[in-house]
Amino acid sequence: MSNISAEQFSLVYNAFSFTFATMAAATAFLWISRSQVTPSYKTALTISGLVCAIAAYHYFRIFESWNASYLVRDGVVTQTQVAFNDAYRYVDWLLTVPLLLIELVLVMNLPSKDTMSLSIRLGSAAALMVILGYPGEIASDNTTRAIWGTLSAIPFAYVMFQLFKGLGASIERQPENVRGLIKSARLLTFASWGFYPLVYMIPYTNLAGGSVTTGVQIGYTIADIIAKAGVGVMIFIIAVRKSENEMMKLATA
Amino acid sequence: MSNISAEQFSLVYNAFSFTFATMAAATAFLWISRSQVTPSYKTALTISGLVCAIAAYHYFRIFESWNASYLVRDGVVTQTQVAFNDAYRYVDWLLTVPLLLIELVLVMNLPSKDTMSLSIRLGSAAALMVILGYPGEIASDNTTRAIWGTLSAIPFAYVMFQLFKGLGASIERQPENVRGLIKSARLLTFASWGFYPLVYMIPYTNLAGGSVTTGVQIGYTIADIIAKAGVGVMIFIIAVRKSENEMMKLATA
Repeated sequence: MSNISAEQFSLVYNAFSFTFATMAAATAFLWISRSQVTPSYKTALTISGLVCAIAAYHYFRIFESWNASYLVRDGVVTQTQVAFNDAYRYVDWLLTVPLLLIELVLVMNLPSKDTMSLSIRLGSAAALMVILGYPGEIASDNTTRAIWGTLSAIPFAYVMFQLFKGLGASIERQPENVRGLIKSARLLTFASWGFYPLVYMIPYTNLAGGSVTTGVQIGYTIADIIAKAGVGVMIFIIAVRKSENEMMKLATA
Repeated sequence: MSNISAEQFSLVYNAFSFTFATMAAATAFLWISRSQVTPSYKTALTISGLVCAIAAYHYFRIFESWNASYLVRDGVVTQTQVAFNDAYRYVDWLLTVPLLLIELVLVMNLPSKDTMSLSIRLGSAAALMVILGYPGEIASDNTTRAIWGTLSAIPFAYVMFQLFKGLGASIERQPENVRGLIKSARLLTFASWGFYPLVYMIPYTNLAGGSVTTGVQIGYTIADIIAKAGVGVMIFIIAVRKSENEMMKLATA
């Protein structure tokens, strides 16, 4: 635990509350919108909403934990003896990161055999990535942090290889009016995930104690919003367009 | 934090509770009503309800924060050492103001390319407006307040220009029985948004401490109810009428 200023406390406090509201709103949006898509895309929206719901729960917990770790009175911050539980993030990712890949696979509506095997392979690799990152996150020295960080990069690289190489051919076979969107969703997933290792490496920089804590928390928060709510909204747009395509085909058949 | 009277404390306390109830009720109304409109207008109602849901969450938090900042015993108000967290408003607007513009665009049911580009442009400008306003709101001197307020007015002007000039032609192409309503919704958006800068400028007036706090809180509360629940109900009426038009066309085709 590091010393933070009242402004830093407030910034993180408000960022957590904001993210809770965003995730809860995205959940409601994605679940309510299920009724607007054809059966093939309902599960993609269910899971996209689930990812945001799980994140909303964890941001509520993180908010509470943050509040319990510091006491702010008359603008003066003192640390309580209760530790801030950063592990909520890893617990969240362990559930949400595999599901995020599965929602991307589901919205492509591949043959069910491919959907199954891709979901299992990508989901397992993503879970492994999160598990291997955790010992580094809680390590007190930067060497241990670097070792686990590197190990965690192996399944990360595998997932990215699969997304860009393995899924490439399937994406080219998607309807023209969603092909660009699916590529953007894949890119957003890649870009937002690429953000996590950067935040993970903040402790290596010259930033001082309170700024590191604030930087790590705000950084992860922004990455989470983009990767979950942002990608979720894109999945919704893709699902609606593909449903319209299907309906059109049915109407003209 | 300023000294307020017991009457001022109660007035703000009850206004917050009233607004929470209004926003929660508007959310339920808009989401329940989704089933009455054709697919083209469902997303407009989903998002209108979402705006009110996000506002309800923040009014619940603001209410709690207000309660934690003052202690009222035997009609005597004393300040606790816990600061009132006014930032909830800005966090709320960062999410809801872009969504408010998107619901207005969605109910017009433009070609999907136009909907997308308008939503992104108006949404980003609105978010920028809120972000630029915040440093002024928390500034202790009126000069800093004025500088950020002025910067924030630039994206505000852009949004208004787009709403009145850019959307003008599209509104003229709307069915006759909703054209007036869409213009009213646009006007209400403009009028209620114009209210925020007025409230923002209250600290420049001669009003004393407790009256400023009370005036700012009540002012923002009224503007929020009009801009969110008020505009939401208009979006509902427009969506219902346009759905009826569509059904009529289908029936006579």
